[in-house]
Amino acid sequence: MDFLRVAGAQINLTVGDIEGNTARIIDAMAWADEIQADVLLLPELAITGYPPEDLVLRDGFVTANIEALHRVAARAGEVVTVVGFVDRAGGRARDDAGHARVHNAAALMHRGRVGGVYHKVLLPNYGVFDEDRYFVAGAEPGLLWEINGVVAGVSVCEDIWVEDGPPAAQAAAGADILLSINGSPYHLGRAGERESMLAERARAAGLPLFYLNLVGGQDELVFDGCSMVFTGSGDLLYRAGQFEEEMFWVDVPLPAEGREGVERVVVSSGDLLEGDPEPPPEPVALLEEEAEVYRALCLGLADYVRKNGFTDVLVGLSGGIDSALTATVAVDALGADRVWGVTMPGPFSSEGSVEDSRTLASSLGMRFDVIPIEAPYAGFLEALGRVLGDTETGVTEENLQARARGTILMALSNKHGGLVLATGNKSELSVGYSTLYGDMVGGYGVLKDVYKEMVYRLARWRNSGGEVIPASTIDKPPSAELRPGQLDTDSLPPYPILDAILEAYVEGDRTPKEIVAQGLDREAVAAVVAMVDRNEYKRRQAAPGVRITPKALGRDRRLPITNRFLQS
Amino acid sequence: MDFLRVAGAQINLTVGDIEGNTARIIDAMAWADEIQADVLLLPELAITGYPPEDLVLRDGFVTANIEALHRVAARAGEVVTVVGFVDRAGGRARDDAGHARVHNAAALMHRGRVGGVYHKVLLPNYGVFDEDRYFVAGAEPGLLWEINGVVAGVSVCEDIWVEDGPPAAQAAAGADILLSINGSPYHLGRAGERESMLAERARAAGLPLFYLNLVGGQDELVFDGCSMVFTGSGDLLYRAGQFEEEMFWVDVPLPAEGREGVERVVVSSGDLLEGDPEPPPEPVALLEEEAEVYRALCLGLADYVRKNGFTDVLVGLSGGIDSALTATVAVDALGADRVWGVTMPGPFSSEGSVEDSRTLASSLGMRFDVIPIEAPYAGFLEALGRVLGDTETGVTEENLQARARGTILMALSNKHGGLVLATGNKSELSVGYSTLYGDMVGGYGVLKDVYKEMVYRLARWRNSGGEVIPASTIDKPPSAELRPGQLDTDSLPPYPILDAILEAYVEGDRTPKEIVAQGLDREAVAAVVAMVDRNEYKRRQAAPGVRITPKALGRDRRLPITNRFLQS
Repeated sequence: MDFLRVAGAQINLTVGDIEGNTARIIDAMAWADEIQADVLLLPELAITGYPPEDLVLRDGFVTANIEALHRVAARAGEVVTVVGFVDRAGGRARDDAGHARVHNAAALMHRGRVGGVYHKVLLPNYGVFDEDRYFVAGAEPGLLWEINGVVAGVSVCEDIWVEDGPPAAQAAAGADILLSINGSPYHLGRAGERESMLAERARAAGLPLFYLNLVGGQDELVFDGCSMVFTGSGDLLYRAGQFEEEMFWVDVPLPAEGREGVERVVVSSGDLLEGDPEPPPEPVALLEEEAEVYRALCLGLADYVRKNGFTDVLVGLSGGIDSALTATVAVDALGADRVWGVTMPGPFSSEGSVEDSRTLASSLGMRFDVIPIEAPYAGFLEALGRVLGDTETGVTEENLQARARGTILMALSNKHGGLVLATGNKSELSVGYSTLYGDMVGGYGVLKDVYKEMVYRLARWRNSGGEVIPASTIDKPPSAELRPGQLDTDSLPPYPILDAILEAYVEGDRTPKEIVAQGLDREAVAAVVAMVDRNEYKRRQAAPGVRITPKALGRDRRLPITNRFLQS
Repeated sequence: MDFLRVAGAQINLTVGDIEGNTARIIDAMAWADEIQADVLLLPELAITGYPPEDLVLRDGFVTANIEALHRVAARAGEVVTVVGFVDRAGGRARDDAGHARVHNAAALMHRGRVGGVYHKVLLPNYGVFDEDRYFVAGAEPGLLWEINGVVAGVSVCEDIWVEDGPPAAQAAAGADILLSINGSPYHLGRAGERESMLAERARAAGLPLFYLNLVGGQDELVFDGCSMVFTGSGDLLYRAGQFEEEMFWVDVPLPAEGREGVERVVVSSGDLLEGDPEPPPEPVALLEEEAEVYRALCLGLADYVRKNGFTDVLVGLSGGIDSALTATVAVDALGADRVWGVTMPGPFSSEGSVEDSRTLASSLGMRFDVIPIEAPYAGFLEALGRVLGDTETGVTEENLQARARGTILMALSNKHGGLVLATGNKSELSVGYSTLYGDMVGGYGVLKDVYKEMVYRLARWRNSGGEVIPASTIDKPPSAELRPGQLDTDSLPPYPILDAILEAYVEGDRTPKEIVAQGLDREAVAAVVAMVDRNEYKRRQAAPGVRITPKALGRDRRLPITNRFLQS
């Protein structure tokens, strides 16, 4: 039986690191050569890293990426290598009116040259994507390429998400196999959505489908890899691991005979391997939900730290579950010797909180210091005394404590160079239950897109092999400990209710009326929606953090700060 | 001679305030009725406010805006009223894949009903604009409307910026007059660009052109109004004021005779006014550069404060020119009784700085307090002492002073409710010469998009009618006063050089090589470019501020934080 040996390099690249990315690509090409692949797939925009955002509007950036492509092509041997890059649509990267003049493209390289270029036809411009800002759409969805006698259709990411998109056109035009290169970001549930969509595309086309995805973190996005190969009946031949680099290959069985008279560009005219195809490796099992989210958080953090040139991180430990989970993720992602925990007790911190933080740090094996905030807090009260006079103690004084802590963490960062991790979760950030320049301080927010209920699930899951996060941290009622006896539920609905409202409002764009109709309390819904709307200004100044839901509080949710809309 | 009496309501609307906007629109309609206008133009998306961003993806928002449109239409009498709103393209506001299903539209209302709807054809999706994210493009550029026997083409904003866009199609199809409703944001030089573009469009079409623009601030954008009317020879008939609301009307002379057999939708079939047209009022003169920028800053700030429900603002006065200009703008925008200046001397503040701040506050007539930072600063040093040990004094201690100040301002804000104004300028923010959570603290940054050289120009211009900003503040060498004898030029090139490099790099996207070729010092260019790139993370946490240049450090410049690209 004829088969095509297709290799996939599910690798972790860095935006703007054209030289580093190029070196990784050349390594992958050498490996594909060794295993005698017919084709090697690399991710979408592998040369530049993805997404490069406004860098692609710079002419110098586009030039550097095309020069790199030609250096890579010069190294191409017998393996047809499909790599993502930015191609010029003519002239400079953008015209005088600001319109982009480049394509999101895939080059097919062979024997030292670029044998063909495909331009992405469908440009996503919703959610986190802005590709209409950056790229001109390709106009040849049905282009076909001959690789050692086999006719292949090549497409880029979004192209395959639409039922009658380019892969369907390629199948209709006579393709024997569909090849798809991707930079598809993770969110919880995405792997399953992708798998059923891809199986359906393969089945509809009646063609084998090789889907190669990027892996790694880039600012708020994390790419989960999880590349997949399907038969023409839509059966899964192979699934690569999630959240890790993997070089893999599959001998993809081909349809019994190709069609005659199919128009295509000949890229390579070698012979297919003879003999029987090797059976594919066992598909990597999908992670369970908690493990999946946890790995996403770890990879997002590790890559943000590494790619931005940091080595160490700092976490303020309050004794609460958010900071405990943040520190645990950090230790798992970076190693205990790179994480510094600091607890900063104030006038209303409980003894138990300091002890819980100490226990956590000891379980994790990380550096731990106690720096009380009494002196700076007293200093602020003294400085402000004359002006504030005898006003009642309240939010001002609570925020002073939070800001004294934030300032201390930043001082340690300034002195020692570690990146401060913000510890707020998505539930808090959504309703603004956090202090700007206080606990919101930090370069990266590990839990920024994690609802409080998921924080609990992750903590329990992480403890399942042995207690790391103290049980008392998980079990005690959540409190900011900024005034005596304070509890989160003084200001917010219980978290299960809060999270249900937030999911419906933030992710689902449901109206309050619709949310109440789901069975949630009318007053709670009104209060939460008002808090979410009122606190857009705070979120704008929040640290970035890994996106793990379909709609994070980042560029997939672009609301005006100035906004008087009150939905009933 | 036949003429059409066209009225324009250059009004200040608020995003999301559908009820308030509707009331303003109805007022304008009553006025247009009184002056016997044939047509009244209102701004682009007047019903919702502009730009509504992701609000338009919410079904409830679209419904509320359409209900409002019908309430407005019910009030329409003889005057044909053209108003911007969000029209459904069918079904919900967006489909399951996240694609928008609405139009950026203009309704023509008459005698209690909507007599026609035009859908914006050209959707800007570059710079600050994301209209492909929000809207489906209209498909009927050449639609024409009959208003009292006159054939009019209606278009929306971007439609007129392209040479062969909808107004050209409308002219070719037999229009007698072109009507254009807009939400066109300000930047320095924009008024002139618009005027020559519009004159050219009128001339090319050989038709009179009535251009109505929005006025007011919305987050980082400020709309300058400056609506204009042209004859069919491209001569300016009228220009409305910049940065202010204005209701105006012009009797626009019509071409001698219309064409026969022109396809159009009849909206109203009344009679034109008889007799001679009234001569148009004298065009309002364009402001000089400094006045224009200053008015933009005042309007942007005033609207941010008012539309977000604040009354008062707080400014930390350092004795330097940035905080002095910020306070002056605030007083001019809001009134002296709404601005509170606080100077917070630290160990390295000069006596002169405190005195300059006091003098400024006294000239402006604003509340002024002195709150020394010694106590909290000492508190931080004490708290950190054990951990920091005997390390050398440096950036950490400088930032502690800045952060103590930021915390004090936020405490005053928490206690009294005023909005803290950040005082950093564009030059500083570009290179990261500012302390995150320190002097970057604030809800709004008045000078965020103002280069230091323009700060000087504005200060001198504001002083021209009598000294407000002390001469010593303007004349002394810029210093952060965070260590003895510190000067900005210890860390940065002199501002004229810095600003020239920034303009070329930030706004022009020039490569370092190209900037050096302009005659700038190679080392300075390399250093500045590296600082700009390295400090993207700081800008992400910066307060919003009025955009006054063609490319601000906001959503018109979307660079990744994680970015290893080094352009040579």
